[in-house]
Amino acid sequence: MTEDRPDFSTLRLPGGDGDGEAREERPDAERLLRSLDFLVEAHRLSGIYRLNRLLDGTRGESSAEHSWHLALMAIVLGETFAPKVDLARVGTMLTLHDLVEIEAGDVPVYLDDERAAAQQREAVAAERLYGRLPAEQGARLRALWQEFEDATTGEARFARAVDRLQPVLMHWAAGGAVWRERGVSAAEERRVTGSIEEFWPELWPLTEALIDDARRRGMLRD
Amino acid sequence: MTEDRPDFSTLRLPGGDGDGEAREERPDAERLLRSLDFLVEAHRLSGIYRLNRLLDGTRGESSAEHSWHLALMAIVLGETFAPKVDLARVGTMLTLHDLVEIEAGDVPVYLDDERAAAQQREAVAAERLYGRLPAEQGARLRALWQEFEDATTGEARFARAVDRLQPVLMHWAAGGAVWRERGVSAAEERRVTGSIEEFWPELWPLTEALIDDARRRGMLRD
Repeated sequence: MTEDRPDFSTLRLPGGDGDGEAREERPDAERLLRSLDFLVEAHRLSGIYRLNRLLDGTRGESSAEHSWHLALMAIVLGETFAPKVDLARVGTMLTLHDLVEIEAGDVPVYLDDERAAAQQREAVAAERLYGRLPAEQGARLRALWQEFEDATTGEARFARAVDRLQPVLMHWAAGGAVWRERGVSAAEERRVTGSIEEFWPELWPLTEALIDDARRRGMLRD
Repeated sequence: MTEDRPDFSTLRLPGGDGDGEAREERPDAERLLRSLDFLVEAHRLSGIYRLNRLLDGTRGESSAEHSWHLALMAIVLGETFAPKVDLARVGTMLTLHDLVEIEAGDVPVYLDDERAAAQQREAVAAERLYGRLPAEQGARLRALWQEFEDATTGEARFARAVDRLQPVLMHWAAGGAVWRERGVSAAEERRVTGSIEEFWPELWPLTEALIDDARRRGMLRD
């Protein structure tokens, strides 16, 4: 994960009185350095791949692309399905939610056994990753990620449901190639998407419609 | 662009009284169909590539990844550099801003001559793309994209500046491989990033610091 680390040592960031002082004595420069370090590291989410393919089939979807698509789904579906939640917070949450995968990797929803170990790795990753940011901001964004994980608020529950719905939509749209390869049944897909019904019942009929259509058309086994 | 179009014809979407009625007579189902069609089409932004590489050098960054990274940058830098703008609107704008590239492609900032033709294509693409959505929502999101293009509001200007800053940061972080290949000079990079100073002067000293460091370290020609 640490190959090609950018070298911040020669960067003369603005902030405070300038060049003569060490960065630690210029709080704005130090804050900015931490922000840039976090943002550069975060970009590695583009190198984490998921089961979903792009529609043209050329490669797997990256977790960065997945996160972007979730934010777009929340914008488009939120007005109809979640008019009472703070969609701005949902958007921020979805933008952040998979960053821990930079260190912990993506674990497909079909691999139950690996999820528990992944959650441990993700907690460690969150500590390290958000710890790169200026302390107060890092704590706040990390808390937003934890809120998503805990699914205790309306924003987090809607975000969690959208996160689970997106792969169903995209597997369906791509003709079910991943489902076929893995021999996934409609019953199994209902099980792994069951949390949609739990987190945001209004999105469940749509999920069911996609699964039923996929079953009828042979993308999912009976 | 239209290969592998998903087949919505057999999908029995919820809304209204159900199976017996045609979709057009069930406004919720029709609205939902349009939303899903837009979201699936939007996913193709993952197949549009930019000059930026991933940090591991394996491939170009997709425009979807770029859009996600911009949203993250706005979250992290917005508090410091743009405390008075509505960062939620900025996030939505950045999530949407490159969708037109699905039809119009990405034109590198270094190709001045191609930008004008691209803008024409983008206007047509916006009409088609946002026209897929339910009418009122499509008009609203398209207006938000236009606001970004016009750079008339604080939100749009900050978003535009972040959009221009991100490739500088990532070229710099990757050791300037793209700059070296194209033989870009510090003066040329200052010129193509000059709109940062125009749109959001507070971000200019940081941009200059990156360009100056890149020049000193030989990533950009003198």
